[in-house]
Amino acid sequence: MRIAIVGLGLIGGSLAITLKENGFAKTIIGVDKNSESEDKALRRRIIDEALPLDEAIAKVDFIVVATPVDVMKIVLPQILDKVDKQVVLDVGSTKETLLAELKNHKNRGRYVATHPMAGTEFSGIDAAIPKLFDNKYTVICDAEDSDKDALEKTEALYKSIPMRIARLDAKAHDVHTAYISHISHISSFALALTVLEKEADEDKILELASSGFGSTVRLAKSSPDMWVPIFRQNRDNVLDVLDEHINTLSRFRSLLIKKDFDTFYKLIEEANSIKKILN
Amino acid sequence: MRIAIVGLGLIGGSLAITLKENGFAKTIIGVDKNSESEDKALRRRIIDEALPLDEAIAKVDFIVVATPVDVMKIVLPQILDKVDKQVVLDVGSTKETLLAELKNHKNRGRYVATHPMAGTEFSGIDAAIPKLFDNKYTVICDAEDSDKDALEKTEALYKSIPMRIARLDAKAHDVHTAYISHISHISSFALALTVLEKEADEDKILELASSGFGSTVRLAKSSPDMWVPIFRQNRDNVLDVLDEHINTLSRFRSLLIKKDFDTFYKLIEEANSIKKILN
Repeated sequence: MRIAIVGLGLIGGSLAITLKENGFAKTIIGVDKNSESEDKALRRRIIDEALPLDEAIAKVDFIVVATPVDVMKIVLPQILDKVDKQVVLDVGSTKETLLAELKNHKNRGRYVATHPMAGTEFSGIDAAIPKLFDNKYTVICDAEDSDKDALEKTEALYKSIPMRIARLDAKAHDVHTAYISHISHISSFALALTVLEKEADEDKILELASSGFGSTVRLAKSSPDMWVPIFRQNRDNVLDVLDEHINTLSRFRSLLIKKDFDTFYKLIEEANSIKKILN
Repeated sequence: MRIAIVGLGLIGGSLAITLKENGFAKTIIGVDKNSESEDKALRRRIIDEALPLDEAIAKVDFIVVATPVDVMKIVLPQILDKVDKQVVLDVGSTKETLLAELKNHKNRGRYVATHPMAGTEFSGIDAAIPKLFDNKYTVICDAEDSDKDALEKTEALYKSIPMRIARLDAKAHDVHTAYISHISHISSFALALTVLEKEADEDKILELASSGFGSTVRLAKSSPDMWVPIFRQNRDNVLDVLDEHINTLSRFRSLLIKKDFDTFYKLIEEANSIKKILN
């Protein structure tokens, strides 16, 4: 297959590495408004060539859009205007507003909305790594609006990695990702700020922090260029989850104030049941 | 050296493994009220023998107390009653109330208050692992209240691992650990509960969660038997930090409500500066 990757960052770059390595892609064409990212991707041999968007579209079987989600809203309609038999994918973390905008596009059928559930706290082509997606899930949204062949080809692409595939409608996808991804980022950003504000003048103290602190604030390193558009597009769902999270923290607070450590113990035991779900 | 480890859990067991492996300990005697933990530690050859507390005290150079912090308050005075030339250490996560209770003990000088800043979300002797402490920090509290030789021997023990050593007074230790350790645990417990309450009937959804979610809720697997006593003893400091953390989350909430994504962007950029501190 010939594949164009539009947006050479962590996700686009890692997909390029993986699909080339496993043989699914014969040729990878990179498209990025930032020529430095294109140059780096070429030098690292992550892509075979860099081309302007229109030239890339004309030469490939797949166009994978891996830009921040605000850019997707602009670039996906432009790409769909120009495709014929090609399959167009996005890999964005929000789906409802994007799919609403593409709903009536004449080439909507050529487009498959996907969300590979994997990432790291780093961004840009420098952060692209092999094996990022291995055995993780990709969610395909509103699959019934995609042409049958486009859907089959997309599933073949993800299965080649190998990834597992789940299907959700766009609305459910956005609700669930608010819970299982977006809130984790807000929690980390807030925890980092809380601690930085207190310990700002005492950087030696932060050297003492153990891996537990590192784990909970790891995502606080994530890029605002990627995340602000996600929070903007999924604002209502994120607000719901954030309200619930603040309420849960306030329960802990109120138990501490009342010195009700028996209930505190029970809440921790309930939280422990996350063990059954996560490894 | 002959070392008694009182409390054969994650920390006590991992210290036993490390100090035997590096040759600092010639003999390790395990003491645990749970005979199953003693048996497991013997079978894994983490300890050389298991003895009742009094017999162990009589046979060793060091007594390391690695029980939950509520048990320390009971057992440390009992141990200090019986020591002569031995050095007594604890490895607990809270120090102010414990040190206040031991302040006037006739053998206070034989005791060194330490806190090796390392751990995992797992507990019990099954969780004991090598290299848990390598190159991390140990905090020694109120060092001036320990005998000079006890302090030197304790530093030699930790340096043999090797660990780096920092000194803080007990009050400062408890304030800073609230920020760099205790709040991370409450944040994880709360996040796990928030998500579990929403997704309880949809365990397939949680399979979709990526490593970012796993990272922020990892500590939610931590044992209430260890953590409730810590929150009880460090309640006031934890409440202060929890208030600040809820305030920070409320700032994010208010920016979402106002759709002020420019300020949201700036807050994420500020949070990103945690990069400079954590690897």
